[in-house]
Amino acid sequence: MDDSNAKIIFQPSGRRGKVPKGTTVIEASRMLGADIEALCGEKKICGKCKIRIEEGRFDKYGVESRQSHVSPWQAEEDKFINAEEKAAGYRLGCATKVEGDLLVYVPEESRAGKQVVSKAARNILIEHNPGVKLYYIEVAKPKFEEPTGDFERICAKLESDYGLEDLGIDIQTLRNLPTTLRQGDWKVTVSVWMDKEVIRVRPGKTINSYGLAIDIGTTTVAAYFCNLSTMEVIDTVSMMNPQCKYGEDVMSRITYHMMNKDGLEKMSNDIIEAINGLIGQAVKGTHPPKTKVKKEKDETAPDEWIELPEEGKTYLRLAREDIEDITIGCNTAMHHILLKINPEHVGLAPFPPVVHHSLDIKARDLGIHVNPSAYVFMLPIEAGFVGADNVGVLIAEEPYNRDEIQLIIDIGTNGELVLGNKQKLISSSCATGPALEGAQLTFGMRAAPGAIERIRIDPETHEVDYKVIGRDAWRKYSESSEMKAKGICGSGILDLLAELFRAGIVAKSGAFNKKNQKSNRFRENPDSGQAEFVLAWAEETSIGKDIVITQKDVRQIQLAKGALYAGCKLMIRRMAIEKVDKVKIAGAFGTHVDREKALVMGLFPDCEIEKIISIGNAAGDGCRAALLNRDKRVEANWVSRNVEYIELTVEENFQQEFVAALQLPHMTDEFPHLKGILPDDVLNQA
Amino acid sequence: MDDSNAKIIFQPSGRRGKVPKGTTVIEASRMLGADIEALCGEKKICGKCKIRIEEGRFDKYGVESRQSHVSPWQAEEDKFINAEEKAAGYRLGCATKVEGDLLVYVPEESRAGKQVVSKAARNILIEHNPGVKLYYIEVAKPKFEEPTGDFERICAKLESDYGLEDLGIDIQTLRNLPTTLRQGDWKVTVSVWMDKEVIRVRPGKTINSYGLAIDIGTTTVAAYFCNLSTMEVIDTVSMMNPQCKYGEDVMSRITYHMMNKDGLEKMSNDIIEAINGLIGQAVKGTHPPKTKVKKEKDETAPDEWIELPEEGKTYLRLAREDIEDITIGCNTAMHHILLKINPEHVGLAPFPPVVHHSLDIKARDLGIHVNPSAYVFMLPIEAGFVGADNVGVLIAEEPYNRDEIQLIIDIGTNGELVLGNKQKLISSSCATGPALEGAQLTFGMRAAPGAIERIRIDPETHEVDYKVIGRDAWRKYSESSEMKAKGICGSGILDLLAELFRAGIVAKSGAFNKKNQKSNRFRENPDSGQAEFVLAWAEETSIGKDIVITQKDVRQIQLAKGALYAGCKLMIRRMAIEKVDKVKIAGAFGTHVDREKALVMGLFPDCEIEKIISIGNAAGDGCRAALLNRDKRVEANWVSRNVEYIELTVEENFQQEFVAALQLPHMTDEFPHLKGILPDDVLNQA
Repeated sequence: MDDSNAKIIFQPSGRRGKVPKGTTVIEASRMLGADIEALCGEKKICGKCKIRIEEGRFDKYGVESRQSHVSPWQAEEDKFINAEEKAAGYRLGCATKVEGDLLVYVPEESRAGKQVVSKAARNILIEHNPGVKLYYIEVAKPKFEEPTGDFERICAKLESDYGLEDLGIDIQTLRNLPTTLRQGDWKVTVSVWMDKEVIRVRPGKTINSYGLAIDIGTTTVAAYFCNLSTMEVIDTVSMMNPQCKYGEDVMSRITYHMMNKDGLEKMSNDIIEAINGLIGQAVKGTHPPKTKVKKEKDETAPDEWIELPEEGKTYLRLAREDIEDITIGCNTAMHHILLKINPEHVGLAPFPPVVHHSLDIKARDLGIHVNPSAYVFMLPIEAGFVGADNVGVLIAEEPYNRDEIQLIIDIGTNGELVLGNKQKLISSSCATGPALEGAQLTFGMRAAPGAIERIRIDPETHEVDYKVIGRDAWRKYSESSEMKAKGICGSGILDLLAELFRAGIVAKSGAFNKKNQKSNRFRENPDSGQAEFVLAWAEETSIGKDIVITQKDVRQIQLAKGALYAGCKLMIRRMAIEKVDKVKIAGAFGTHVDREKALVMGLFPDCEIEKIISIGNAAGDGCRAALLNRDKRVEANWVSRNVEYIELTVEENFQQEFVAALQLPHMTDEFPHLKGILPDDVLNQA
Repeated sequence: MDDSNAKIIFQPSGRRGKVPKGTTVIEASRMLGADIEALCGEKKICGKCKIRIEEGRFDKYGVESRQSHVSPWQAEEDKFINAEEKAAGYRLGCATKVEGDLLVYVPEESRAGKQVVSKAARNILIEHNPGVKLYYIEVAKPKFEEPTGDFERICAKLESDYGLEDLGIDIQTLRNLPTTLRQGDWKVTVSVWMDKEVIRVRPGKTINSYGLAIDIGTTTVAAYFCNLSTMEVIDTVSMMNPQCKYGEDVMSRITYHMMNKDGLEKMSNDIIEAINGLIGQAVKGTHPPKTKVKKEKDETAPDEWIELPEEGKTYLRLAREDIEDITIGCNTAMHHILLKINPEHVGLAPFPPVVHHSLDIKARDLGIHVNPSAYVFMLPIEAGFVGADNVGVLIAEEPYNRDEIQLIIDIGTNGELVLGNKQKLISSSCATGPALEGAQLTFGMRAAPGAIERIRIDPETHEVDYKVIGRDAWRKYSESSEMKAKGICGSGILDLLAELFRAGIVAKSGAFNKKNQKSNRFRENPDSGQAEFVLAWAEETSIGKDIVITQKDVRQIQLAKGALYAGCKLMIRRMAIEKVDKVKIAGAFGTHVDREKALVMGLFPDCEIEKIISIGNAAGDGCRAALLNRDKRVEANWVSRNVEYIELTVEENFQQEFVAALQLPHMTDEFPHLKGILPDDVLNQA
């Protein structure tokens, strides 16, 4: 073993490599392409490069102990890191030298290139029927002749004015009721959950109430902050899923639970903390200016919007208790972990979830800090590997209301597939792995500034043109030094394989066509002896070395796309249909993907290019639909039990189909729409 | 001010007086008749006389600060009082000298004469239909072809085997579900609450489940610990209501809340802690031996009863989580305080409660430690001064199912009255105050050893014979020194006034008949100049002084009985009836009361002696009925809204009736059944 070098892994980016001992953590992050903010140029005066030395042992992360593997604490760090943080392992990246193998966690605020999370709300049609509604009532005061209880007085009025019957009331709300009624001089606004339970009573008349629709992905968490009365999306807030430090994918988190007694507790607490953080962001009032919330003439509540004339903006001024409803959609493992339900069996054949049906849980029972009486609606689950996130996609897209046969693909760390129409719907999942999201590739990275997101390769010269996130111009129109490329993200990866193939650089088997190389970009790596192709020369990068794609990387991408394609094909066979009418691609991946290249790569079965549609964060849209329209909750339960789940791995011929699907692209008759897109010689190769 | 004496008040007995400075707390307790256990004879070696020096200021309790008013800590105390208790103000009574005014709290375990709480369960007919029921099911294991969720699998079985539909499940139960199902090899016993929600799943087959019916009185708390499957009352556990230290009656506790910012919180926490204590007692397994719980042949659960052959007894071995249901009945103020609902308006005209309807609240939301998914059923409330305790009495007695007109009197610190039959029921409350329970009288005390509970006075000689709690023989058959009388409790007080009146010692106005005294027991107190009558001479007592009843004491009793009688009379008038068919007396008071003497005293309107019935702790019986029969919960809500509450104080002629009712006894035509019981000259006095 080389004693002068130390191994270092950065989380959550997963960047890893060896650096000479004595290197500062921030220098190491540059070498390895992990992004740490460093405004002051490592002078230890800006405090922006806070990182946390993670616990861990050699067996899992190659890290033995955090104590001996970093240089001693420096006085300058005291200024930015308090005692509590210090105890938790926080350091300044510029003041900490690598003295041995390390696992370093870079908190979101210290990441230089914050991830571009494409989770903005789409315009989808939602009927207004929120889970929580407001009712204004004027109640008669108690008299000697009629000394009825406060709660019964408001119930009587809610029944006579609005027809609400048999209402319950949360104990937390009941506690404030007598004071609120008298404060409001017996005129109050009542928040009622699902026409069943009184969850809030406010003095006077008020017309707005708020809620959050939260989409928890394996990697990112996004929340739509909505006005339940106007249905307006006030803001979209998002962050990385803090569980990434326990493992990048679902299976490794389930494993973390099985290997660690308090693993479930820790992972659950982390995501709850993240949710509380998002709620905090949502109610803090720093939202982009929007239409000012209309105030009714007779509304007596104080104005929630503050105008800041110097900026010409309005801000929303709310408290946590103003959040009165939450819907959450996530995959089955994330669902179980959040709820502290043992997720072990979700990871073991035949992968049964613990519960399918939606759950209404008091937010307080989950430690979520919003209105103390509010509920959280957990969307129902289809199957162990097709979770509530997919149910969200379904209620947003409603394929069960269409004649045309849709194939809906949600590509995340796990691929989820739904196929069918109003006659029948089937679903399945396939282990695409994280390759399509940029992980596991030599220069793979998340969609962040510096990531190559678009690639073109000239079939004649094999010259490469590309575009990086954060810079508008393509390589061709830029100085080399301007590109500052750092790696390749998901959409770039898709482009890459399609272009390599179209240019004849790789054959349909995925192997580099050694005889057909036209530039010095193709080479054998002197260390590994592996074939590789240079995408960006060292001088075009911010990491000081050539960004390449290796034969092994191509294989990883093939495995991912093969799993997806084989899944689609087996489902089409199960449905006994010839072709699909429409392909919908959901997820952040779908937003950026070039549909022509997805087809070239053979990501899914052939379809007219115009019928391939990106539907963005449809899972999040489904959560929002359930927040704003309670009928969607019923619909979600119905659809979750009426989609037939197909376990692909036990399907006949699964293995053969998978192996065949690794090839790119398939026989012309399988892909009629590729004619004209791919050169004939590529398409017809033996 | 007298500098050599200090004022001392003992709680919860309320005994108070002045003692010379330098007196030990235990000596002071003897002088003032407060009971503190002292096994070792004040040698500081038994540790039984632990007391707590309470916080408080001069304005309320005449106490300024606890620090300077007691002698310094002694080394011997360390042995019995830990640091935490010390910080809370605990001392040994024998090691602590009074150096200034003090408020001393005597914890229940240090009280020499533990109160005799008459709350044993009566045999009442209850149909078996408990709120929580057990269902044994054998579930099919998940397969690839049928990988349905764990919860859906048990739901399907509960529906096919038992017809249960649309079940929910508590999040806490859901968390353990996958593990439990596999532990039990897919054979489990499911506890279902109200056919609505799964609250527990246990591996294997088990047939027993347990619950508590808790009756919270202003002064005492009693719980029936029941087997929900067999309906057996396993034990009755009881204790003093720890809220007594904030005030003896309901109004003073409401006042305590209004005067102290954290008053509600403190009082609620105290009663919750008491309930948790009772639950602890119930599950600890030290119950009297009972029929051993039958075990079914195929029951696979471990045996809950352990046989201790050396004692020939069986004990129940349970954990807190084995308590799966709780019902609670209490008066409106206790109800609101327990739930931390602002009770302020219950104490202000027109005295509306905050809620009438019964409440189902998760025990965990109240801090009650039982099964984490269990509910607490709070019985509904009739009115501000007729609470859930009275609803309990009603569903136990069911006057609404009878033809005969019943008058049901529940005498506690507050008197609650119900009158009617199946045609109509009315209720009201009257401020009897605590006199009938022994408080506020010079020598009044609770029903504890040493309390005079029965009295006979010879009309010829005015000699007094009596019996004390804890000693079987009457005074007449005992040595003076054997009696160790200490004071008079509720039932003794009733006897006393009736006997004083029958013997002609007091006139119908309540004044002592100065001209008709036949013994030296009647005298004028040399200090106060007040007339008084000696019940027990100093040598018969354990307190070293004559136990007397003063003119002022008689007035107190008259006020109480007058309030009760006037209330009954106004209700009878409101019902436009001539007489009642039956009088039922509930409460501990009712268990001990001599019905003939109650009639002589004019506690309630005339009735045949045989038709005066003691129904014991009917409020507790009602709670038990609601625990074991869910239909009683519906009945409780129905009756609470179908009893017409009469606010007596605003009734016409209330004041006149009350003044008239102070007299004893009333005109012969009002009390035909007194003929023969009272001598004619007494009955016919002008």
